[in-house]
Amino acid sequence: MRIGVDIGGTKVAAGLVDSSGAITHKTRVPMISAGTAAAGFSAVSAAVETIFAAAPEARAAVTGIGLCSPGPLDPARGIVINPPNLPCWRGFPLTAEVERVFGVPARVDNDANAAGLAEVLWGAGQGYANVFYATLGTGIGAGIIFDRKIYHGRTGSAAEGGHVTIDYRGPRCGCGKFGCIEALASGPAIARLARAKLAGGTRSQILELAGGLDEVRAEHVGAAFREDDAVATAVLEEIALLLTVWLGNIVDLLEPDCIVVGGGVAEMMGPFFEKISCNLPRWAINQRAAEIPLVMARYGADAGIAGAAALCE
Amino acid sequence: MRIGVDIGGTKVAAGLVDSSGAITHKTRVPMISAGTAAAGFSAVSAAVETIFAAAPEARAAVTGIGLCSPGPLDPARGIVINPPNLPCWRGFPLTAEVERVFGVPARVDNDANAAGLAEVLWGAGQGYANVFYATLGTGIGAGIIFDRKIYHGRTGSAAEGGHVTIDYRGPRCGCGKFGCIEALASGPAIARLARAKLAGGTRSQILELAGGLDEVRAEHVGAAFREDDAVATAVLEEIALLLTVWLGNIVDLLEPDCIVVGGGVAEMMGPFFEKISCNLPRWAINQRAAEIPLVMARYGADAGIAGAAALCE
Repeated sequence: MRIGVDIGGTKVAAGLVDSSGAITHKTRVPMISAGTAAAGFSAVSAAVETIFAAAPEARAAVTGIGLCSPGPLDPARGIVINPPNLPCWRGFPLTAEVERVFGVPARVDNDANAAGLAEVLWGAGQGYANVFYATLGTGIGAGIIFDRKIYHGRTGSAAEGGHVTIDYRGPRCGCGKFGCIEALASGPAIARLARAKLAGGTRSQILELAGGLDEVRAEHVGAAFREDDAVATAVLEEIALLLTVWLGNIVDLLEPDCIVVGGGVAEMMGPFFEKISCNLPRWAINQRAAEIPLVMARYGADAGIAGAAALCE
Repeated sequence: MRIGVDIGGTKVAAGLVDSSGAITHKTRVPMISAGTAAAGFSAVSAAVETIFAAAPEARAAVTGIGLCSPGPLDPARGIVINPPNLPCWRGFPLTAEVERVFGVPARVDNDANAAGLAEVLWGAGQGYANVFYATLGTGIGAGIIFDRKIYHGRTGSAAEGGHVTIDYRGPRCGCGKFGCIEALASGPAIARLARAKLAGGTRSQILELAGGLDEVRAEHVGAAFREDDAVATAVLEEIALLLTVWLGNIVDLLEPDCIVVGGGVAEMMGPFFEKISCNLPRWAINQRAAEIPLVMARYGADAGIAGAAALCE
């Protein structure tokens, strides 16, 4: 039994996770991201204490506390370096503090790395050694699991899969590069593409659901697609192609045993997974690319909790 | 002491390699790529026997014979699967045959994987655990070394770094994808870019060296660049940008400890390495990307021999 703590800029979610990866108790408290490091840490303590209060047997049984924290991090030393979203924790020795307060081993990593590990240990990537995990949502994050362990790279910054460019002359990404898959196929990019297609006055359920062109978000596109809307279908087909090109690059570099995708955009794109797999050999030199399972993540909104807990395996 | 054998569609090169990676004896014989598997194998035997004849002490001292063979291969089982350039060896158990004939352990891998390993063991990547190796020439090959071992992926087809696309709406690559770095920055792509710039009638030493527009090859661009030719400089600056974008993707996915590049185009691009490194943070979300050493390979034309020998370490 282990506790997973998912720390964000505005909230801390924590859960008790059993040996099959099931989350048996969950809580969520506000994060205190400004002020002192201790104030921020008090939110983490409060979340963990809430779990112990709900499951008193856990206090003796928990063998580790894992944490996902905004980066950059030094996972090996358990230190939060200088997260833009958590200014209070610059250089904060998070795992040492958790170990001191709760008396059990603690580990920290970024959320996509951790979520990828949880999928390999308990989820859709179970049974595979080398897995590429991606979370497709407002941003696109990734985790590379080699030999059932997180691959960190030189300083812990590997697996920035969302910032692989497939179109260096394309639109600018928030990161400063051009044509990153995050700039092309994230939630905001889906909304942008839909708005562009609708700007000419085309009728679509997307507009009815959104209430106006400026209000269009990715979830409206997803909902309209489920109603067979033609514009929504065209938008998601373009996104499917972009994801195919991107995954082709991943396969040609890493040839993973399995590709696991999660997040809101992944759920929206589920009906296209088979098509993406089939088309992968067109966008990979690897002619056996279609054999690589492309599967939906087990963990949705709880990926951070499960991932954090997986760090303690 | 080990023997490295580099098998191509038209020749077999072999060398005796000492424990520091120095190639002390070398030979080259024609490959017999049509006909029976045994005929093809006789060329390998002849190359190895030539080495033994030149260095008789090697017959007792050699601890392994490594081989680079055209793929696809099954490195784990030592089998050549169905190489387009070596039709005689479809399903051929190459390492078993070498072990039977020469009585020492044998290993096989593709040339870029093997050359990458040689660089890590004995060359420009020495001292690093995770290295991205690329050979830039007529094609672009790559090898990924993780934890000082070749990373093969699911079926041995990982590390096809030359077929990472950075421009999916760009020119078609020989592999069928669009905008692969091989289609944009290999030797033939450099020649194509130079011809395009010269087609309007611009004066350039490239044309004098080549003798005509249709005769322009990458080496003419390299030679003209060394003479400060403006068109050649403009061409190689464009190539440097394309390589920067591509390496940015590699860094964002793999964050290697070191990047080693070899091959004729790499030698031509040597004067741009520092600029590529400096610009890498513009094309990587990793803001420490410029710290990653970008270095010239130790092995040039002998990369296959050294690589093959490295497989026996």
